[in-house]
Amino acid sequence: MSEALRQLQERLGTIVDVERVSRILSWDQQTMMPPVGSEHRADHLATLRLLSHELLTDAEIGRLLDELGPLEESLPFDSDDSALIRVTRRHYEKAVRVPAELRAEMARAAAQARPVWVKAKASSDFGLFLPALERNVDLRRRYVDCFDDVDEPYDVLLDDFEPYTTTAEVREIFAELKAELVPLIAELRDAEVDDSFLTGGTFPVDRQERLAKEVVTLFGFRPDTWRLDQTEHPFASGAGVDDVRLTTHYDPATLKSFFSTMHEYGHGLYSHQLPRRLERLPTGAPCSLGIHESQSRLWENLVGRSPQFWRFFYPRLQEAYPDQLREVELDRFVAGINRVKPSLIRIKADEVTYGMHIILRFELEQDIVNGRIQLRDLPRVWNERMTEYLGVDVPDDAQGVLQDTHWASGLIGYFATYLLGTVMSVQIWQKVLEDVPDLEEQIERGEFGALRDWLGEHVHAHGAKFSPQETLERATGSRIDAKPYLAYLRAKYGAGVAA
Amino acid sequence: MSEALRQLQERLGTIVDVERVSRILSWDQQTMMPPVGSEHRADHLATLRLLSHELLTDAEIGRLLDELGPLEESLPFDSDDSALIRVTRRHYEKAVRVPAELRAEMARAAAQARPVWVKAKASSDFGLFLPALERNVDLRRRYVDCFDDVDEPYDVLLDDFEPYTTTAEVREIFAELKAELVPLIAELRDAEVDDSFLTGGTFPVDRQERLAKEVVTLFGFRPDTWRLDQTEHPFASGAGVDDVRLTTHYDPATLKSFFSTMHEYGHGLYSHQLPRRLERLPTGAPCSLGIHESQSRLWENLVGRSPQFWRFFYPRLQEAYPDQLREVELDRFVAGINRVKPSLIRIKADEVTYGMHIILRFELEQDIVNGRIQLRDLPRVWNERMTEYLGVDVPDDAQGVLQDTHWASGLIGYFATYLLGTVMSVQIWQKVLEDVPDLEEQIERGEFGALRDWLGEHVHAHGAKFSPQETLERATGSRIDAKPYLAYLRAKYGAGVAA
Repeated sequence: MSEALRQLQERLGTIVDVERVSRILSWDQQTMMPPVGSEHRADHLATLRLLSHELLTDAEIGRLLDELGPLEESLPFDSDDSALIRVTRRHYEKAVRVPAELRAEMARAAAQARPVWVKAKASSDFGLFLPALERNVDLRRRYVDCFDDVDEPYDVLLDDFEPYTTTAEVREIFAELKAELVPLIAELRDAEVDDSFLTGGTFPVDRQERLAKEVVTLFGFRPDTWRLDQTEHPFASGAGVDDVRLTTHYDPATLKSFFSTMHEYGHGLYSHQLPRRLERLPTGAPCSLGIHESQSRLWENLVGRSPQFWRFFYPRLQEAYPDQLREVELDRFVAGINRVKPSLIRIKADEVTYGMHIILRFELEQDIVNGRIQLRDLPRVWNERMTEYLGVDVPDDAQGVLQDTHWASGLIGYFATYLLGTVMSVQIWQKVLEDVPDLEEQIERGEFGALRDWLGEHVHAHGAKFSPQETLERATGSRIDAKPYLAYLRAKYGAGVAA
Repeated sequence: MSEALRQLQERLGTIVDVERVSRILSWDQQTMMPPVGSEHRADHLATLRLLSHELLTDAEIGRLLDELGPLEESLPFDSDDSALIRVTRRHYEKAVRVPAELRAEMARAAAQARPVWVKAKASSDFGLFLPALERNVDLRRRYVDCFDDVDEPYDVLLDDFEPYTTTAEVREIFAELKAELVPLIAELRDAEVDDSFLTGGTFPVDRQERLAKEVVTLFGFRPDTWRLDQTEHPFASGAGVDDVRLTTHYDPATLKSFFSTMHEYGHGLYSHQLPRRLERLPTGAPCSLGIHESQSRLWENLVGRSPQFWRFFYPRLQEAYPDQLREVELDRFVAGINRVKPSLIRIKADEVTYGMHIILRFELEQDIVNGRIQLRDLPRVWNERMTEYLGVDVPDDAQGVLQDTHWASGLIGYFATYLLGTVMSVQIWQKVLEDVPDLEEQIERGEFGALRDWLGEHVHAHGAKFSPQETLERATGSRIDAKPYLAYLRAKYGAGVAA
């Protein structure tokens, strides 16, 4: 191996380690840390952030990349080493444009905004949050100004979450979705679907936990390399392919934890099946948040809300909750978990209405970054569009503009990846169905090995070697396309859903 | 504040953060991490170790220290800033003598030796462990060679755990102890003390856990800033004054978990009461392992094995285990938990015999470092001295030379601090008794606030500003002295122990 490449890999290994350590600290903060420890934790995370930034922007990395230019050109585009040089150059060139002080200030402002947002949400007081939001937005504008080679400012923010993806491309896909989703929602919104059994009873949490573990174990969770804990907000994290950590939230009033657990399992499986030969390299990481979300949505929706899965698993659920579910037939259950009903909260939205929650945020974020909306007007604009897109009235800001943590955490440009991933999940699913023709029968038998292997080989194995669209194309033969997703929704919901 | 001092503090804050992060990762590894994650974790810990070494040995720290020399001299010796410059200079000057590659090699060798030791201990096969031990010892010899201004090689190793403390000083104290302990043990070894009730029954673990939490809560544990988890080997760790993490081990066959929980509480309280104004500075750290151990032994032995404590707490224990303890009177219980009986395993040793386990290791370590013992002869020498010092026959190496993890982890020079701390714990205790005359009555009422406050004010508040001996002298008026400890043992055990 070239000595320059070896040196580069060693430096990158250190950076990956520091980033993984930060992930474990965040996991610990949300699962284990004594609450008053948060002051220490903020210092630790800020320090690690600064160190990884310093390590990445070290001039020696630039020198090694220059030296490795000829090697990169001599190698096939899809070789591991060529991809590593290419991906590292991208990270390096983005990082060196941003002054360390601005990075630190962004991290600090986000850390300080989060508790303010928690308070503002609790009292549904947008005015309380406004100054913190203004500071976060202002810092993002300064961040955007560090880049001068983009078509529009929002591109800079989007690219941090969905690399090589422009606002114009996303706008086009979302326009196509919006044109079909708005009438589809209007058509489905008054359908009579009974899901009262999902919320009418009480579902003791210990049994939910046992069943959640049973489901993910069936999917492929193994306790020597995975954990599943409870948190207020579910997430997936970890420190490498052999240290995968899921969290979920059990609410005794509903059975929704199942779907969030399956969702996080999809994220976890992606992390677990990343290419081991690229461990501790930026190419061994997930490709993008959109591709990540395609994996979680696939397990949550395509598997987890399918009649096939519940034909296998419903008897176990009935057995766990006989009083609540004995009288509920499988068909009614599956229809209930797929009920379409416009609602206020994104994370509680069904498959059909979910997209409009995202499109609303994507539009507002652009308006904010471009200065077309004054931040103080945000609640009013939010509420108007919720009525326009979903036909719901927002009673207060806690259930409106204050519901998500993203903006408080400085994450502007992130939301779009949820819907991109959802769209891609259907494209991927249809390709699996082509390659594994008896997939649905396997699921009905509770067998998931072929699905895991297919995803591992065709999606996960690429790590972050390619752009999201190129990764999708290598997996499915196509770039992102709204049509399969819209066709799936029409086929599934146009005719009603039954087992 | 001087700009150089501000810059130095900022750099030191980063180093402290990195070290605290490592502590949380080690805690996580032993409590939470999926087991196969250990490969990742070894990378992360090695990376953090290397980063903190690089940060500390940065030439800019040397330059700042030079610039701050006049300031240090102008300030009183015990001022925070003078102590910070002094302590940092010590750390810096030690660190720059050791090549980064040797540091990394020591860390790697220790990480690789540990699993070999686990296997060797499981099969009681010293030969299996020998090559890994040889490598660790060889690296320590190279480490010692980096220092040329010491009286004897072992000083270098000891100083890493007990700063400013020489082998000769420890040898003198230990000789005094040995001269009294050997005959005292011989005298007590055949005393008839019944402790069959401590091991004869079964003590369900859930109740042990509940009682352990009750005890440490009584002592001062608060769930907003502390955790208590279960591990194979108990330890105390944390990430700052407001994030203290204890672990303990519950064994249903015995009640020993009480004493290890109280021991770890003592360590935890020290961490929790370190001076907040010195947060993220090396002076805000614990002073030494010896001082640390004085705190844990004080709570474990002086409080936790005292008749006063059990007069308060024994009724609760009896209530939890009525079948096992209903017939056991308080006097018999207190005599049982204080029974002196020479045994094979250090961590299970009573207060009187414990010291000889340490003296044996302290002697052997010097012989190893000085080349007076061939490593392959270690089991034979170990076994001979166990017979000589404690009158016990070692049946196999798992219960002999392989019992402790320290040498596998490269920790040579560490053991002595256990006994130094034990000796100092009695000196500190007697001073508390002078200052808080009704301390024993308070303990009998289950009140620990005055004890906590005294330790906070007289020991913990100094952090690492002074040497261990100076810290002890500021707390008690004396430097380390074997006599109070020996007098305590004679008083307590010469007359038998009863409530």
